[in-house]
Amino acid sequence: MANITKKVSWTSRGDDAGGGEGTPLLNGSEEVRYTRQLSGVGGMFHIGRLSTVDLEEDVTSDEEARPTKSQRYGSVSTYPGSLQDSPKGRPEEIPHNEKLLSLKFESLDYDSSENQLFLEEERRMSYLGFRCLEISRWVICGLIGFLTGLIACCIDIAVEKLAGVKYFVVKQNIEKFTEVGGLSISLILWAVLNSSLVMVGAITVAFIEPIAAGSGIPQIKCYLNGVKIPRVVRLKTLVVKVFGVICSVAGGLAVGKEGPMIHSGAVVAAGVSQGRSTSLKKDFKIFEYFRRDTEKRDFVSAGAAAGVSAAFGAPVGGVLFSLEEGASFWNQMLTWRIFFASMISTFTLNFFLSIYNNKPGDLSSPGLINFGRFESDSVAYNFYEIPLFIVMGAIGGLLGALFNKLNYWLTIFRIRYVHRPCLQVMEAMLVAAVTATVSFSMIYFSNDCQPLGPDQSEDYQLQLFCADGEYNSMATTFFNTPERSVRSLFHNPPGSYNPGTLGMFTVTYFFLACWTYGLAVSAGVFIPSLLIGAAWGRLFGILLPTVTIWADPGKYALIGAAAQLGGIVRMTLSLTVIMVEATGNVTYGLPIMLVLMTAKIVGDYFVEGLYDIHIKLQSVPFLHWEAPATSHWLTAREVMGAPVICFNRLEKVGTIVDILSNTSTNHNGFPVVIFTHPGKICGLILRSQLIVLLKHKVFVELARSRLTQRKLQLKDFRDAYPRFPPIQSIHVSQDERDCMMDLSEFMNPTPYTVPQETSLPRVFKLFRALGLRHLVVVDHDNRVVGLVTRKDLARYHLGKHGLEELQLAQT
Amino acid sequence: MANITKKVSWTSRGDDAGGGEGTPLLNGSEEVRYTRQLSGVGGMFHIGRLSTVDLEEDVTSDEEARPTKSQRYGSVSTYPGSLQDSPKGRPEEIPHNEKLLSLKFESLDYDSSENQLFLEEERRMSYLGFRCLEISRWVICGLIGFLTGLIACCIDIAVEKLAGVKYFVVKQNIEKFTEVGGLSISLILWAVLNSSLVMVGAITVAFIEPIAAGSGIPQIKCYLNGVKIPRVVRLKTLVVKVFGVICSVAGGLAVGKEGPMIHSGAVVAAGVSQGRSTSLKKDFKIFEYFRRDTEKRDFVSAGAAAGVSAAFGAPVGGVLFSLEEGASFWNQMLTWRIFFASMISTFTLNFFLSIYNNKPGDLSSPGLINFGRFESDSVAYNFYEIPLFIVMGAIGGLLGALFNKLNYWLTIFRIRYVHRPCLQVMEAMLVAAVTATVSFSMIYFSNDCQPLGPDQSEDYQLQLFCADGEYNSMATTFFNTPERSVRSLFHNPPGSYNPGTLGMFTVTYFFLACWTYGLAVSAGVFIPSLLIGAAWGRLFGILLPTVTIWADPGKYALIGAAAQLGGIVRMTLSLTVIMVEATGNVTYGLPIMLVLMTAKIVGDYFVEGLYDIHIKLQSVPFLHWEAPATSHWLTAREVMGAPVICFNRLEKVGTIVDILSNTSTNHNGFPVVIFTHPGKICGLILRSQLIVLLKHKVFVELARSRLTQRKLQLKDFRDAYPRFPPIQSIHVSQDERDCMMDLSEFMNPTPYTVPQETSLPRVFKLFRALGLRHLVVVDHDNRVVGLVTRKDLARYHLGKHGLEELQLAQT
Repeated sequence: MANITKKVSWTSRGDDAGGGEGTPLLNGSEEVRYTRQLSGVGGMFHIGRLSTVDLEEDVTSDEEARPTKSQRYGSVSTYPGSLQDSPKGRPEEIPHNEKLLSLKFESLDYDSSENQLFLEEERRMSYLGFRCLEISRWVICGLIGFLTGLIACCIDIAVEKLAGVKYFVVKQNIEKFTEVGGLSISLILWAVLNSSLVMVGAITVAFIEPIAAGSGIPQIKCYLNGVKIPRVVRLKTLVVKVFGVICSVAGGLAVGKEGPMIHSGAVVAAGVSQGRSTSLKKDFKIFEYFRRDTEKRDFVSAGAAAGVSAAFGAPVGGVLFSLEEGASFWNQMLTWRIFFASMISTFTLNFFLSIYNNKPGDLSSPGLINFGRFESDSVAYNFYEIPLFIVMGAIGGLLGALFNKLNYWLTIFRIRYVHRPCLQVMEAMLVAAVTATVSFSMIYFSNDCQPLGPDQSEDYQLQLFCADGEYNSMATTFFNTPERSVRSLFHNPPGSYNPGTLGMFTVTYFFLACWTYGLAVSAGVFIPSLLIGAAWGRLFGILLPTVTIWADPGKYALIGAAAQLGGIVRMTLSLTVIMVEATGNVTYGLPIMLVLMTAKIVGDYFVEGLYDIHIKLQSVPFLHWEAPATSHWLTAREVMGAPVICFNRLEKVGTIVDILSNTSTNHNGFPVVIFTHPGKICGLILRSQLIVLLKHKVFVELARSRLTQRKLQLKDFRDAYPRFPPIQSIHVSQDERDCMMDLSEFMNPTPYTVPQETSLPRVFKLFRALGLRHLVVVDHDNRVVGLVTRKDLARYHLGKHGLEELQLAQT
Repeated sequence: MANITKKVSWTSRGDDAGGGEGTPLLNGSEEVRYTRQLSGVGGMFHIGRLSTVDLEEDVTSDEEARPTKSQRYGSVSTYPGSLQDSPKGRPEEIPHNEKLLSLKFESLDYDSSENQLFLEEERRMSYLGFRCLEISRWVICGLIGFLTGLIACCIDIAVEKLAGVKYFVVKQNIEKFTEVGGLSISLILWAVLNSSLVMVGAITVAFIEPIAAGSGIPQIKCYLNGVKIPRVVRLKTLVVKVFGVICSVAGGLAVGKEGPMIHSGAVVAAGVSQGRSTSLKKDFKIFEYFRRDTEKRDFVSAGAAAGVSAAFGAPVGGVLFSLEEGASFWNQMLTWRIFFASMISTFTLNFFLSIYNNKPGDLSSPGLINFGRFESDSVAYNFYEIPLFIVMGAIGGLLGALFNKLNYWLTIFRIRYVHRPCLQVMEAMLVAAVTATVSFSMIYFSNDCQPLGPDQSEDYQLQLFCADGEYNSMATTFFNTPERSVRSLFHNPPGSYNPGTLGMFTVTYFFLACWTYGLAVSAGVFIPSLLIGAAWGRLFGILLPTVTIWADPGKYALIGAAAQLGGIVRMTLSLTVIMVEATGNVTYGLPIMLVLMTAKIVGDYFVEGLYDIHIKLQSVPFLHWEAPATSHWLTAREVMGAPVICFNRLEKVGTIVDILSNTSTNHNGFPVVIFTHPGKICGLILRSQLIVLLKHKVFVELARSRLTQRKLQLKDFRDAYPRFPPIQSIHVSQDERDCMMDLSEFMNPTPYTVPQETSLPRVFKLFRALGLRHLVVVDHDNRVVGLVTRKDLARYHLGKHGLEELQLAQT
């Protein structure tokens, strides 16, 4: 009885595992021992409310009163299902919570399934064939870079045009009403213009493709980490993203157009590398070799790098971003290709922008954002300034942590109460209107007038109530695209801004940006962060004792910008390089690094980075670089899912169909065992492969009767990739159910295995380094005893009280 | 009979494997099948003369007429031994050959041995303990950076001083004799000065520490790849290296002081991270946790990066160099630490140099080489110049290939005929004298006089036969340290050089540099390569039609330098970044990348990179990024070493001592099997661990009698690391030989295993990604059937005729 309970409860466990006739793995005493050890070192498991409740319901037999680990997760996973079945299933109860791990996300398989078909193809291929493949890879990377650059160019021009028209109209209006009075009309005009632009963008995003909201960086981080986020690299997402970002930036929100470029590049890469568009139902019959997760993920890395490169004119930074976020295995050729894509991307953008700006051949604006050049003819910075930089880094870390914490609460609020598309659109419009109003009042009440210099390059200067020949200083920050404001703060000569102006601006923009991030619009957080940081950094520089001759406020604006951005996103090496490349000056490398490091250390003390917060709130099973430090207590035996559903090498079709159709399990990988030696592993087969086999009716009996039947090829699997049909769409007749299927040729005959005693860090290392999706746990006789998947590893994390365990949820 | 032959022949196989009572793995028919398949696709094994000969001698039984794979390697490995036993064993026959793989190199173990002691220690450690370790790592990286920067500073100042004195004396002398005649005296003075400086350097290197010769980059590449090169990271090596490089650069050889910095940084890292110096017999009792291969290698990566950073003022380039050459697994925190070390290193150098130059606080000379800043106020380069850059890249690739080929022949010649230290010193002195003579004649016969500009910054200008107010243009390139010559070529205004001067200089310096590389002096090839490239690049720029207004010859000198360096060393991403950082200008990123890529493609068509050539000539078992493309034919069964010597979990001391003492095997890893199930794997134990166990007499019987005996701790293993005593130094009495040793606690209970059918690329990936040293091959019942080591994988490479196999040699 107890055994049955265990099996049933387990089989509803989740996505990536398998179950079958296994044995209980831990007896009570072992369990007790481990629990004791854990609490002994302060490593404490948080077995939450949910599992405890289910546990009591499940356990019926006395001798199983102490449930095994595997049972626990079994029981945990039954919770959300039952909740969804509960009356109404109200979305208020969506368990988006950083203490949960969602089971709805599937994993990507970075490890190729080296089955016979694959090996035969590889062996047939000559050396020349491999060379051709290599050349195709380069061509694809070139294309990715080119298209990404082109998209960046379109976004840039569209935003410039739209914003130009908008600011021109508003400026005219303001100038008209400044003299005659009635500036409230200008305010209304401005707010309405902003709101309508934002409305269009928000409607597209919220109603057509919600995944296109935000910067997309968390999603791409997850994808590169090996998590399949549904619809994230589709063509539709790209279109909505590009359109949305144009609307939101032109709509005057406190957002940047740079973050979304990373997502756009990734989508371009995923599309181009497959040589077809599933959405457009167009197959160019090229690049078929690349239709698998391994290759696709490599190209997506290149796409993301190309996106960074186009956004910031930072090709090396792009490569480092991709590597930092994604590629677990550093491969020289791959890196070189990624770099090529990045270079092509920034070059394409630069080339087309130079034509657009009527300066063909001038390659001086390599990215969407151009910080302007920091000239280095003077002494760049002095040794004695370094402590000041570190202080600024700490401030950046503090402010970043505050930003993240506020945004975290806001996001929780949004998940609970603002989940309907129409509400989301209304919130976005409200933010747009508020932004315009606040900006207007700040400009209106500011009396910081500055003389118009001969070399002022501001396009939209507002005179307002200033004397002739003067302009309103507050307006250069608020009445402008954020990119231009950053540049003004970096480069305007000392004295361009009053301390008061900068202080007011920092505070208001901080809250506006915090409110804006997470709205249902496509937008990035890079530029607003830089802008906030540049403002308080410049303020910091101004407030320094004037005896310090080296206190160029522009330099402090740069350091402040780095500190603030680092405090919010907590990127490290790649961000340093991006900042260095964007400023076009290597000299500031050390201070920027110091500042980013300080900001990260200070910020991490309080709260995680913004992207990580959002990933956690989505309950994504994200694998970090290493297993938690204190997890040597755990072994594969404890973390694995068990028992496992296994197939025989020669299996009845009916059994396969039944197991695949079982919606409560929904496993994706099944160990294949030898019939004569029960439980002894001889391979691993994926759900997707079984589906293709069923679809083509590769049954032993049919093969005998129809000798002329075409042999199944790798091409059939590739054609179905990546949207394998669901099992429900495959019809298997009653006769066919009695047929047998021979899996030998299609299974991966050499899956990686580990013994049960392997420690969690060791399992983790193997899993992470090779990008696995399933790792079979075997006993000393090579019998399958469990299966480790991404969720089993992602579940453990270091919390405030030592090692903690996340709960699994179906949503 | 046949069986015995096989066993005997095999046990002489090499370093990293193990052997014992195993079964023949391949029967004749399987072997035939695989051979057929291989030749079917043009993948051809070159079974060389040696193995064929031995094969005929070995095979005595008729039914074993087709030898198994394992036999073949067994037989191959007997060859060098027998050769050395041949009369005289003349060094002319040293089998340094790129078709051999030496067995004398051991592997580093990047995978921790997670035995019970280790796990217990990790489990005892609290979260705070791990934090402290992390902080120590940062401190160590800071120290590494600081010391590396300091060493670079010392080298720089010493070279400047020495070279300054030398050039001053020679210049005085030349000026004196220009008027009165008798310049041959000046020539002799110059030649003698150069030769004596070089002699001192060469004597130190050749007689005290030969491993300090050359740039050290190939050695560090090997170390980071996981090959233990004897004595490469010792303190003595560092001292000799630093001293040698000062002598050789001041001695006027065509060498640079940059390459050796990488080696120096690595030695510093290996020393500092261990908290002791074995050479000085000083143990500071700190950082004991880091006394194992895994941690040490991480720090050596940081040291190498710090070296690059100090050499070129390129911290990001340093990080990329380390990653490109070494770290197979990209770890965010590790990378960040490496970056920190690099930053500290460049900063330290800069700081001390600024004090030395009486400009304290001026942080504008971050590296040993300073290319000078390429200002970007003008249009940097035009779109239409890109084809020109590609042409230059191709030229660089061609010249680089020529350079490498010539140096390859020269190296072969040196290995055969110039192997005695005194001969090596004499060759170095000869090169120094020839360099001085050639330089002098070039200057003497040149009539390229240029007017002295007001802003000329050359320190050692020679007027020679030029009119007053003019100087000899050839002398700015030859009568100067190479670093200054490069800077002159980059930045001197158009018209500073005649085309003839540049042409002559390129040709002579090319051959001088080619002759110099590989001498028994510490010296790098970076700067000579850059100098050659800068010369012909500038020539290229001058010869362009003058209608092209954008033809600034300095820019072409930069591109030429990149092309030439890329053609010689074939580094990719890291070199791009190093060049960009050294020029302080991001704008040239794209052209430099294009040029490097073209140079690499063109060069690779002819011959490998210089470092790779030298690594191959040392027969180092170097693992590349991926298995050869066409190696899917091979499986673990074919590549593994078998049979394997295994130990029982409870093993007799006598057996262990005998096996360890067997000099013909000299294995380093032994699978541990379960006594009751012969051959069933339960762990893996290393030679070093066994030695420590024997030394401390950890025998079952003794433990029973002396209950108070201290339990062996991890500390005992760490104290012995890395120079474990040889087995011969451990005395085991006859009584003790009958004792038993329990290996359970010390073996790694969860070694990675693969089934026999695993394809070579899959084995390779696992091995490379995790940095393994031994990979156990098991059958379906988990019985040990073979062991894969580094040599088994490094043996296969893609040659001109498909897949080729290197032969194994004992030397």
